[in-house]
Amino acid sequence: MHFVIIGGDAAGMSAASRAKRNQKEMDVVVLEQTLDVSYSACGMPYNIADPDRDMEELVVRKAHVFREKQGIDLRIGHRAISIDPNNKSVGFQTLEGKEATLSYDKLLIATGASPVIPDLPGFDLPGVLALKTLEQGRQIKQFIKDHHVQRAVIIGMGYIALEMCEALRANHIEVDMVKPRSVFLPWMNRTLSEMVQEEVSAHQVGIHIGHEIQCIEKQDNDLRVVCRDLELTGQMVLVAIGVTPNSGLAEQVGLELGPDRSIAVDKTLRTSNEDIFSAGDCADAFHVVTGQKTWIPLALRANRAGWAVADNVCGKRVELEGVAGTAVFKVFDLQIARTGLSISEAEKSGFDPAEITITSPTRAHAHPGSTTMGIHMVGDRRSGRLLGVQMVGREGVAHRIDAPAVALHQNMTVEAFSQCDLAYAPPFSPVWDPMLTAANQLLKKI
Amino acid sequence: MHFVIIGGDAAGMSAASRAKRNQKEMDVVVLEQTLDVSYSACGMPYNIADPDRDMEELVVRKAHVFREKQGIDLRIGHRAISIDPNNKSVGFQTLEGKEATLSYDKLLIATGASPVIPDLPGFDLPGVLALKTLEQGRQIKQFIKDHHVQRAVIIGMGYIALEMCEALRANHIEVDMVKPRSVFLPWMNRTLSEMVQEEVSAHQVGIHIGHEIQCIEKQDNDLRVVCRDLELTGQMVLVAIGVTPNSGLAEQVGLELGPDRSIAVDKTLRTSNEDIFSAGDCADAFHVVTGQKTWIPLALRANRAGWAVADNVCGKRVELEGVAGTAVFKVFDLQIARTGLSISEAEKSGFDPAEITITSPTRAHAHPGSTTMGIHMVGDRRSGRLLGVQMVGREGVAHRIDAPAVALHQNMTVEAFSQCDLAYAPPFSPVWDPMLTAANQLLKKI
Repeated sequence: MHFVIIGGDAAGMSAASRAKRNQKEMDVVVLEQTLDVSYSACGMPYNIADPDRDMEELVVRKAHVFREKQGIDLRIGHRAISIDPNNKSVGFQTLEGKEATLSYDKLLIATGASPVIPDLPGFDLPGVLALKTLEQGRQIKQFIKDHHVQRAVIIGMGYIALEMCEALRANHIEVDMVKPRSVFLPWMNRTLSEMVQEEVSAHQVGIHIGHEIQCIEKQDNDLRVVCRDLELTGQMVLVAIGVTPNSGLAEQVGLELGPDRSIAVDKTLRTSNEDIFSAGDCADAFHVVTGQKTWIPLALRANRAGWAVADNVCGKRVELEGVAGTAVFKVFDLQIARTGLSISEAEKSGFDPAEITITSPTRAHAHPGSTTMGIHMVGDRRSGRLLGVQMVGREGVAHRIDAPAVALHQNMTVEAFSQCDLAYAPPFSPVWDPMLTAANQLLKKI
Repeated sequence: MHFVIIGGDAAGMSAASRAKRNQKEMDVVVLEQTLDVSYSACGMPYNIADPDRDMEELVVRKAHVFREKQGIDLRIGHRAISIDPNNKSVGFQTLEGKEATLSYDKLLIATGASPVIPDLPGFDLPGVLALKTLEQGRQIKQFIKDHHVQRAVIIGMGYIALEMCEALRANHIEVDMVKPRSVFLPWMNRTLSEMVQEEVSAHQVGIHIGHEIQCIEKQDNDLRVVCRDLELTGQMVLVAIGVTPNSGLAEQVGLELGPDRSIAVDKTLRTSNEDIFSAGDCADAFHVVTGQKTWIPLALRANRAGWAVADNVCGKRVELEGVAGTAVFKVFDLQIARTGLSISEAEKSGFDPAEITITSPTRAHAHPGSTTMGIHMVGDRRSGRLLGVQMVGREGVAHRIDAPAVALHQNMTVEAFSQCDLAYAPPFSPVWDPMLTAANQLLKKI
């Protein structure tokens, strides 16, 4: 069995490792276009935040370990350039420009996603950077050091933009953030997103919302981000307006595509070609709340999907249930989490949603150190189902979100969720956990 | 409608308040034997920990507010002494010794629980104290201050004993803990309980396990706890070996009793007498994992049961599903949580349990500040069901336990739980949350 994997990141290396664990004798080849495999991509902003830390700390396992200890034929600096599904082969090119092909019995496309770079003048200037690969992380860190960056502009306000904003502030860099859309965190309930915006502003970050970017210009040692009615300057510009799935190869071969041009897969991670699987940030998934296809590129899913592909390739049928869109990130002292649908996503998906937003102390009455957290909860009037939860707070948000995430996997009603026996002790919550208070209030509306 | 409530703590006052909210014109009488109602009982150890804080901070709402703002006929210093179910009346005694009776249409027994005090010589000496009521909390705080307590002995090692151990250490009091049973936390997996024991020992607390207590003796200004082969001295002795339900009145009237002599109630909180309800620490509950009756006195259940009684009394039928035994407490820098069954409880309940214990970093690879947490998970070989989870760690335990708690309410299998889309960001967990790692490992055993 020749199992060829395109892409040596989370999904690809998870699949490779598990395939070799499942069947030691299997021929597993990984083609990775960069020179890096198996690193904590999500950890890059936190590494960049600390100039004294070495970026190489983020590498979990080096290429030679995969080769020597696990027997994986891992070829770094090898870029896949074509797939021939009839002859079941992959064409690739090495860094030196050498081209060759490789046959497969089963193929995994785990090509990930790439930062979206607007097709506007100046986005190719030196100092205009994006963060996705470890090499890009190294470039940003090196650029800050070499150019003694004192001011930076971040284009975008998603979670990578916000994590990088914190990282740059930790480097004592003045930061302006700018975006075209007129809402700070569009997926988030307004009360909660205002809590986040206040936190970011409190850390002396300029937030410029609703400014269409026209170009980036070089001016002496500075870069100038030019909008119609605003100009922002810095020595560095970070582009973080989102990512797009690397589905080009799949598209060329005519594989079916899913939401946002991600690669469509069934629950066994199989594409529309029965010998080709896809996993990780390039592939779509079923959403457990809507039952419909969605594209939510997150690390846990990539790892899990990699394992599932390996099992299916090895003949042990595994179906993945789907994603709930559970995510958490930190910006300065705030934890921000979500699971399931926002109110507008719920409307678009055909539900009849009701919503509630509450604030609650994070600790019991009179317990020292209590802060205020916000919870937003969405339920369906027709079925009574819990549809989504969002939270913002200084403590207890990151892991609290997992409880409603489990509830979404089970199609629980708001009422059933409100009956759950959750943990209580004064340092950690009021007697009625804020999630239960939110559920109790939401029940009155549905 | 005359609704009489015996006991003005969490369950009783929740029921009284909700009944008046439901039906403003209802005659609601609460008989409370102490002078305190509506205070954060669980907050007492944390208040005692800080000599500068006033114990009265713990009072959430004063008696006159319930009377004047909510129209509840709240009678403090009124102790119920008898129930006549035939004439539907309650006999009570005031602090001044005056006796009278009161008729009811519906009665709620919310008499709570009392600390178990061994029937041994010396347990009635001054300075031998227990913690349940606010008045007992005041006594402990005052005793420490008046007697300049420098050494104390705690009998028992449950969560109140451990919380009080931390509180006394915060007062710079030397602490010895002693118990007859030979296991530190008998309900807990050994690996995890050793983590807790190490934490307590690291705070210069003497832990003396397996010593049968014979008596307490007074010696000059000290109290001496005498065991067969050990004597421990201090100016104060705290008895915290557990609580017992205050079911005496119910037993006198012949109401059916449940586990540990708690008052048996159905899902509507009704006792074996259709006009008498019971809620709070004196009443039993169904366990969502076993479906059987259990007695787990905890604050959330008391509040929730109080509400449910009020709704049922007001004619809106409400059934409570049951408890999962979800609990959390803190001792020094450790968070300790559990939900569901331990392995031995699972065996006793007729399951065929398998168990796994793992340790995991609390943060992602290379993320600064990571510590080690322990997770113990129990599943059923026959049904594949998740049965219980225990956790110990310095961060992320208190709210993480809520996810498996929700799973237990849904009778989820370990496999289904292992598929849940849980939150990940480097400051909060590895990509595979420790709970998922535990579930993945447990799956191999069931």
